Amino acid sequence: MSATDEFIDLRSDTVTRPSTAMREAARDADVGDDVYRDDPTVAELEAEAAEAVGTEAALYVPSGTMANQIAVHVHTEPGQELLLERESHIYRWELAGAAKLSGVQTRTIDAGDRCVPTPAAVERELVVEDLHRPGTGLLAVENTHNYRGGVAVPVDRVADAAAVAHGAGVPVHLDGARVFNAAVALGVDASEIVDHVDSVTFCLSKGLGAPVGSILAGDEAFIEAARRVRKLFGGGMRQAGMIAAPGLLALENVDRLATDHANATRLAADLDALAGVHAPEPDTNIVVAHTETAGIPASALVDACADAGIGCVEFDEYTTRFTTHLDVDEADIDAATHRIADVVDGLSG
Amino acid sequence: MSATDEFIDLRSDTVTRPSTAMREAARDADVGDDVYRDDPTVAELEAEAAEAVGTEAALYVPSGTMANQIAVHVHTEPGQELLLERESHIYRWELAGAAKLSGVQTRTIDAGDRCVPTPAAVERELVVEDLHRPGTGLLAVENTHNYRGGVAVPVDRVADAAAVAHGAGVPVHLDGARVFNAAVALGVDASEIVDHVDSVTFCLSKGLGAPVGSILAGDEAFIEAARRVRKLFGGGMRQAGMIAAPGLLALENVDRLATDHANATRLAADLDALAGVHAPEPDTNIVVAHTETAGIPASALVDACADAGIGCVEFDEYTTRFTTHLDVDEADIDAATHRIADVVDGLSG
Amino acid sequence: MSATDEFIDLRSDTVTRPSTAMREAARDADVGDDVYRDDPTVAELEAEAAEAVGTEAALYVPSGTMANQIAVHVHTEPGQELLLERESHIYRWELAGAAKLSGVQTRTIDAGDRCVPTPAAVERELVVEDLHRPGTGLLAVENTHNYRGGVAVPVDRVADAAAVAHGAGVPVHLDGARVFNAAVALGVDASEIVDHVDSVTFCLSKGLGAPVGSILAGDEAFIEAARRVRKLFGGGMRQAGMIAAPGLLALENVDRLATDHANATRLAADLDALAGVHAPEPDTNIVVAHTETAGIPASALVDACADAGIGCVEFDEYTTRFTTHLDVDEADIDAATHRIADVVDGLSG
Amino acid sequence: MSATDEFIDLRSDTVTRPSTAMREAARDADVGDDVYRDDPTVAELEAEAAEAVGTEAALYVPSGTMANQIAVHVHTEPGQELLLERESHIYRWELAGAAKLSGVQTRTIDAGDRCVPTPAAVERELVVEDLHRPGTGLLAVENTHNYRGGVAVPVDRVADAAAVAHGAGVPVHLDGARVFNAAVALGVDASEIVDHVDSVTFCLSKGLGAPVGSILAGDEAFIEAARRVRKLFGGGMRQAGMIAAPGLLALENVDRLATDHANATRLAADLDALAGVHAPEPDTNIVVAHTETAGIPASALVDACADAGIGCVEFDEYTTRFTTHLDVDEADIDAATHRIADVVDGLSG
Repeated sequence: MSATDEFIDLRSDTVTRPSTAMREAARDADVGDDVYRDDPTVAELEAEAAEAVGTEAALYVPSGTMANQIAVHVHTEPGQELLLERESHIYRWELAGAAKLSGVQTRTIDAGDRCVPTPAAVERELVVEDLHRPGTGLLAVENTHNYRGGVAVPVDRVADAAAVAHGAGVPVHLDGARVFNAAVALGVDASEIVDHVDSVTFCLSKGLGAPVGSILAGDEAFIEAARRVRKLFGGGMRQAGMIAAPGLLALENVDRLATDHANATRLAADLDALAGVHAPEPDTNIVVAHTETAGIPASALVDACADAGIGCVEFDEYTTRFTTHLDVDEADIDAATHRIADVVDGLSG
Repeated sequence: MSATDEFIDLRSDTVTRPSTAMREAARDADVGDDVYRDDPTVAELEAEAAEAVGTEAALYVPSGTMANQIAVHVHTEPGQELLLERESHIYRWELAGAAKLSGVQTRTIDAGDRCVPTPAAVERELVVEDLHRPGTGLLAVENTHNYRGGVAVPVDRVADAAAVAHGAGVPVHLDGARVFNAAVALGVDASEIVDHVDSVTFCLSKGLGAPVGSILAGDEAFIEAARRVRKLFGGGMRQAGMIAAPGLLALENVDRLATDHANATRLAADLDALAGVHAPEPDTNIVVAHTETAGIPASALVDACADAGIGCVEFDEYTTRFTTHLDVDEADIDAATHRIADVVDGLSG
Repeated sequence: MSATDEFIDLRSDTVTRPSTAMREAARDADVGDDVYRDDPTVAELEAEAAEAVGTEAALYVPSGTMANQIAVHVHTEPGQELLLERESHIYRWELAGAAKLSGVQTRTIDAGDRCVPTPAAVERELVVEDLHRPGTGLLAVENTHNYRGGVAVPVDRVADAAAVAHGAGVPVHLDGARVFNAAVALGVDASEIVDHVDSVTFCLSKGLGAPVGSILAGDEAFIEAARRVRKLFGGGMRQAGMIAAPGLLALENVDRLATDHANATRLAADLDALAGVHAPEPDTNIVVAHTETAGIPASALVDACADAGIGCVEFDEYTTRFTTHLDVDEADIDAATHRIADVVDGLSG
Repeated sequence: MSATDEFIDLRSDTVTRPSTAMREAARDADVGDDVYRDDPTVAELEAEAAEAVGTEAALYVPSGTMANQIAVHVHTEPGQELLLERESHIYRWELAGAAKLSGVQTRTIDAGDRCVPTPAAVERELVVEDLHRPGTGLLAVENTHNYRGGVAVPVDRVADAAAVAHGAGVPVHLDGARVFNAAVALGVDASEIVDHVDSVTFCLSKGLGAPVGSILAGDEAFIEAARRVRKLFGGGMRQAGMIAAPGLLALENVDRLATDHANATRLAADLDALAGVHAPEPDTNIVVAHTETAGIPASALVDACADAGIGCVEFDEYTTRFTTHLDVDEADIDAATHRIADVVDGLSG
């Protein structure tokens, strides 16, 4: 699959193409109308997905954004607060959905490299409802933390933050779009992380390689409510077994995430060795390269990389993200490193 | 595919299973990450869908509900009114999305068997914004009209209602979930209907037989705005080409809708001949049977039909809907008629 | 107070100027900060207001619109339906607040001259929540019914409609902006009407003559919740005793509403006698004059009346509203009749 | 007015009772129905208020919260971001109104003692709208900054922050509930502060001593739009001249705010001298006392002060607010100091 003059797409692990097995599974899927709950493949996927993260139930939805926004909608009431990390996906990249779709005020904590707020920070920022103040309706945490570099946050940080929220009667949602990357990196089962929260989002379409879809998991009452909100948001699909079937195979891809992590570690080390580039050792499959010292703005780097056959994305003025996934192997990484080295060299010139 | 003792599912045309050709197309689809607009199959589907209804552009979304709700969101501002028919899908079955997702007040017109309001009714109910009154932001019409029995509304009714709205500067959306059924029944091209409105929803997953997805079509600026709202609502999908490929084949199924209509006409005639049952001749693929004279509540009929191997749905206290589609043929219709006759006979006894 | 060449303002009973006694009461009011619940005059007003309509508690708010919108907000959840009469104030003239502030879908019943829907109509339009349909969250009725001509709706109509809603677990709000006009016209105590509903709005600033404010009344839990929503909507006022004091005097003005009704009856009879004018005998203080037969559009009538020193408002293309109140006496009515007769004569000529 | 054994209410400057002159003004006010824009006193107040802050137009509203929320509503579209200081009133104490009433996501900057964010911080936190991110719709600043101790923020800080927002096409709202306290403390005219923003809230009911009401000021188009939103939120009042008349006198109270500031400075110095108490020198009329060193929780201090005849409010675990205003004079301050000293002594014991 790799060849040195092919485009090497490191923009995101969402770009992975479905495998032949997934394509065959789609073709052969046993399907029905899932809005009538007649699709056996979707039912099977939801059952296996729930088992994979250790919850009672799960719901298949078109995107991670929808999974997160349904969770916010079900857990909160309009006029409450959603407490979350300042660089979390729900806050940064979901078009203000919490305010717009659920009427919820966001309260952010800057957790820095810790990624999940300290218990003390959660304690301090929980708001008790009174005549003047909205109460906290939900704490959301993210693991791995995308924007901060695919950080695999240790289980006890999630557990400790969640314990404070729970102590105040506040539920906790985990945006675990890449929770299996976290689990693999931490050497734990995903259920050990999810065990501390009330609901979790995870994506079949990222490192696990499915073409379409995400899972929202939680207890049965939560999923029952979530199913209705999915309909409201327009996420009810018909013979969804066609895309749920590849999703079932995606669940078998958990162990191979270690390969993506090794590739990312290799790439980061190589990039970090370039003059003026700082690329910290990643926990998982996301490499973040800082090029301020080299004087190379991210936008320039992204453009020049594209010309050199490398896909990557701008994260910040001098920060660029490279993501490994199942469509790139070690040879691709080495090819990518060479091309990026040339690009950096040219831009620094 | 048909056999007299198999379950004959007439609940909806959404229950159709994808054909072998569609399954092969899914397997073989050329895909990319559609959130990055890299999926050639989705792009092809959107282009062909736009062409099929004669608009500049189109957007692939997971459901008809999402297509409609995006249209409401893009066309209106919170605090405006949405003018629509009292038994329309957007008003009845979309969980108050217009109010909840878009802050829009609904104003209904009972158009009766006409299905689309008269120009005079539209004129009377358009509200001009002032200090006390919300102004009308959108007129929505539906064709075929589902709840009123799959009525294929003549083009000039749509055109006349739309002309009044346009005269007041109010845009018009067509919920054309089954607009191709309307076109076939009316003997016109779908674009002749769509020509009078500003945006249209149509479903690939109903009579056209695709497993998943609907189309929202309109001009380029509208679709550009709609794409962002799709992201907000969680409808952005990744390698959606897997389900867009069957959608492309679905667009070739337009002409065969005539067969569904013939089957529905046959079924209605047979049901109408039963004692105490009134089933008017349908325009398209939806048969509505009234059993008040027979003293049979719809809920009882639906349950007894299910036991007899016939799927149908309750529409109202004494009204039941039977829908034909590409998974039922003439033999199925005859078998269904016999079973329903027995059921009615038993319940009337 | 009246004189034949003074402007006679019949636009609304909201135009009444506070009496000298009310002005003195404002000057002398014992006040405190009502946001801290320290204003004894507001507390007294709320207690007396609750007693006047027979509820446990009451809340003083800046306007009838705020009272109604708070009621909708407290009784419902976003995504539910609000069932109400098609020409009711909440639906027509409150800027789509139910949708915009509370995310609630309106469902209207055209009750015609009956003003409050029949029990059968309420029964038919109540929606039971399911996966596709929003459930009914609130039934709102209006008495007197403003737009339909200040109709005093008999108690049993309110009771019967409310009973159906209550039977389905749906609460009932009464927009009783002029509920005391209804009570006086019906010869009952206001509490006999309010007894059938869960909350009621009434205005101190209309026929009762207070300068500012309305009352929202209900049980204690409801008012507790309403107090918080009042803050959210910006209706928390400080030394509101200054305007609550005239409000207390307004509560003593109930009996004199009979005079306004007599004046309205006199005016309607005189207007009805004019060629081409139809002005039905009013129940209360609102006279509605139809001038279609005379060929006089309401807008022309309103403008010509203004030139002739008469204030009135356009209700519809050929319908004009004249409202009596405590600033107009019998002599004013006679003067007004003469001027209007001249105006009609001139416009018909 | 003061006496050593009377309750000395330092909870807020909102507790001020209207003066005799204000009460007389209320009694004698020339009024009309302000919803019809017929109230000459309200019109006069709005004109004078606009002049006082140097804007084209102004609107009288029932509360500062309503003024702020109307501003957010008019300046933004749902799904945009509101950028504001982390301890600002709009964010802390307005019941999540920005999210709930306007669908706007809040983004906070912790400006610390600076109270208004640095230009660099504003620059960094402005978000440009794209497919994934909500754009910034409004920057809100607060002066004086209540929660941070009535800080009078220098004009150039407001100007510099606003310049960055304006440079990005983002409007700026000033929550100037106490903007005249800021102006007096800074020795400038209020219009010199307001000159840098697009709209301003200020309260007549705080240090200026009016019983009820606040002003929202801006250009004519803005106020025209605001008038409609005031109706939507239920803030349209009838013969509001009764409370606008005292408001006109309140505008004459600007210069005397210096007395409140002197009293606050005196009180802070005295409290700061108490063992274990830290009360920084205030800019204006708000004294913030920190009692962590003394080991006295704010809740205990507030309760004990209440028993000793002193009103104050808890701001944080060990922070208590005392506010001076026109109902307390130098003798009251001295009496208050003695009582508080006793309380602190007792609680430290």
